Amino acid sequence: MACLLIRDVRNNEGVRFDMLVEDGRIARAAAVIDADDGWLVEDGAGALALPGFVEGHTHLDKTHWGMRWYRNAVAPSLPDRIENERRWRATSGHDAGAQSLALARAFLAAGTTRLRTHVDIDTDAGLRHLHGVLATRDTLRERMEMQIVAFPQSGVLKRPGTDTLLADALRAGADLLGGIDPCAIDGDAVQALDLLFGLAERHGVGLDIHLHERSTMGAYSLDLILQRTAALGMQGKVAISHAFCLGDIDVGARDALLARMSELRVAVVTTAPASVAVPSVAACRAAGVTVIGGNDGIRDTWTPYGSPDMLERAMLIGMRNDFRRDDDLEIALDCVTHSAARGCGFANYGLLRGNRADLVLVDAQTPAHAVVARPVRKLVVSAGRIVARNGALV
Amino acid sequence: MACLLIRDVRNNEGVRFDMLVEDGRIARAAAVIDADDGWLVEDGAGALALPGFVEGHTHLDKTHWGMRWYRNAVAPSLPDRIENERRWRATSGHDAGAQSLALARAFLAAGTTRLRTHVDIDTDAGLRHLHGVLATRDTLRERMEMQIVAFPQSGVLKRPGTDTLLADALRAGADLLGGIDPCAIDGDAVQALDLLFGLAERHGVGLDIHLHERSTMGAYSLDLILQRTAALGMQGKVAISHAFCLGDIDVGARDALLARMSELRVAVVTTAPASVAVPSVAACRAAGVTVIGGNDGIRDTWTPYGSPDMLERAMLIGMRNDFRRDDDLEIALDCVTHSAARGCGFANYGLLRGNRADLVLVDAQTPAHAVVARPVRKLVVSAGRIVARNGALV
Ligand SMILES: [Zn+2]
Ligand SMILES: [Zn+2]
Repeated sequence: MACLLIRDVRNNEGVRFDMLVEDGRIARAAAVIDADDGWLVEDGAGALALPGFVEGHTHLDKTHWGMRWYRNAVAPSLPDRIENERRWRATSGHDAGAQSLALARAFLAAGTTRLRTHVDIDTDAGLRHLHGVLATRDTLRERMEMQIVAFPQSGVLKRPGTDTLLADALRAGADLLGGIDPCAIDGDAVQALDLLFGLAERHGVGLDIHLHERSTMGAYSLDLILQRTAALGMQGKVAISHAFCLGDIDVGARDALLARMSELRVAVVTTAPASVAVPSVAACRAAGVTVIGGNDGIRDTWTPYGSPDMLERAMLIGMRNDFRRDDDLEIALDCVTHSAARGCGFANYGLLRGNRADLVLVDAQTPAHAVVARPVRKLVVSAGRIVARNGALV
Repeated sequence: MACLLIRDVRNNEGVRFDMLVEDGRIARAAAVIDADDGWLVEDGAGALALPGFVEGHTHLDKTHWGMRWYRNAVAPSLPDRIENERRWRATSGHDAGAQSLALARAFLAAGTTRLRTHVDIDTDAGLRHLHGVLATRDTLRERMEMQIVAFPQSGVLKRPGTDTLLADALRAGADLLGGIDPCAIDGDAVQALDLLFGLAERHGVGLDIHLHERSTMGAYSLDLILQRTAALGMQGKVAISHAFCLGDIDVGARDALLARMSELRVAVVTTAPASVAVPSVAACRAAGVTVIGGNDGIRDTWTPYGSPDMLERAMLIGMRNDFRRDDDLEIALDCVTHSAARGCGFANYGLLRGNRADLVLVDAQTPAHAVVARPVRKLVVSAGRIVARNGALV
């Protein structure tokens, strides 16, 4: 791969610099770098350089991104929504391969170079969704780093055979094991979590568990998760998605849980929804718990919302946490950049020498400005390749 | 003004039609209208036609839209924020005329053709901000209908002379009288509200009162406002901005207040912030209370957030209220279109024959799709004139 010299970009402090990319990595950054013959040269024109964005929680397989608009008329309960999705899939001709590719490409065009997606594994669809998303990952492998979570959307106890399918999914290429509401969905939190942790241990993979359960029920499930994380020595390998309970239990109980999570290096993944209690980003960080930002589903049968633009997610995280100061907005941005990479375990991340050359150029005066203005991505570089210009893939 | 024929646009139900605009008004809509010589003809190419958007609550005079990025490092209390703004104004060279024009033009480019703005009236600035915004209104008078609220940001009791300035502002061209937290800011709710209602009655204007007070304090102030609305026969002339208390008092007390508001035709103006309790749009509407959507400040010393794109505000209102169904998203859109126009008293609104020809064309399959995708405005027509194309003013 040829050398790529990106001239005249700005860092978070407003200092202008040139950056040399070699073999997909950041080789050098300096005030001025003179170009050699044969180098590709890009003029950054003083744009702000941000690291490639990280989407920490989405569902590429569920989306109808780019399809005909899906008219949502579903009742609001969780079982209604799960059943509605199952019915829609069976009748809509939805193709998880094509749809996940369409959405992943939109993410890339908007500057996301690393992404964690949950993929439904269930006894109706088997591994069909997984195979679609694996194909997408393969198609984009030189441009996007993708983690796949084998996700039992309908729980692990109610539909016999789900555990075998999850094991198959991990053998077929899923990187992590998912889970969901062990009290509310499975009805037996101990048995459900024992099954999940057992599977994860046997396959040597981490866990990322959807925990929508509110208040004390969620705190109970979270306690069981932390017990098993400690018992199995899975420090640093577990993430809790949503963790709404951390937003509505009393602050003393919350802080005790956060202290244990910090100790066990259990991360929180938040989409910062506006309509439910959510973990406070400030409280998590004060306790030393890594916070990862994500969309959750994007335009699927669950929700019409969501966007492949991670600057927009950072803005929503900022709004939900009443972040108004510039330093706070930088924390919101951190949730979809450095903290997300650290929490998910994406390696060689960030605009430092030796790291994978993933960067995004935007016309913004500061990182805080980029979060609220969400300007078009002038240039997206992933693993040293120019993958998008002015919001469109090249 | 020449006739303007807009061909091949779609309504909410997907029916394609042509629309004829004459003398700034909608003259006719029909499946096919044949063009006469001398008519301007625009091809809508099947785009969705929405009525011009309504911004029900902003502060054009405070914004630093388009200025150098303002680095926010202010402490979070309300008095801190008020003092910080006062200091910034005195030292930044901020010009309410130039800034309000820049932001109003951005609103227009994004399809907002009617707008209510609160303008600071205080003993430091006098009527300086008002004169700036009046100049903006005059500059845009053929393209945007603007209501100006004379807003005592620092209350009406603490700084002697404020009441005289408010009266001057109403004589100088402000359309409504504003107010703010009569308990929390003024410290004497009865005296403050008597002063405001007295002023409004003498000048024959309506009231739009900022009520951030939470819970029972806010409910107390709201009760005093409703008492005075009834006593002075000001039905249909009062709006409550924010009304956070309606989001956190108990449901019985809330519904009793909403029933009185409905009876008195007192509207609620919501920005649907994600980080505080807010009035439920569904509960307000069920009680017959009109809900108006708005941004509040946009990129000022108070907040880095906000956008002149009212489709984005509709999306945020939808997210805050957990609206996921298409019919619910249409309610969110209604808050920045029909309900906002009705609540603010903007006349001749909507895509019916005889109304002012304010419309926005977007590439969206349905209104719900427009809310979540917020596509670029292909065409904006205000009072029969083409004012913007593809997101930029013409
Ligand atoms: Zn999810
Ligand atoms: Zn306001």
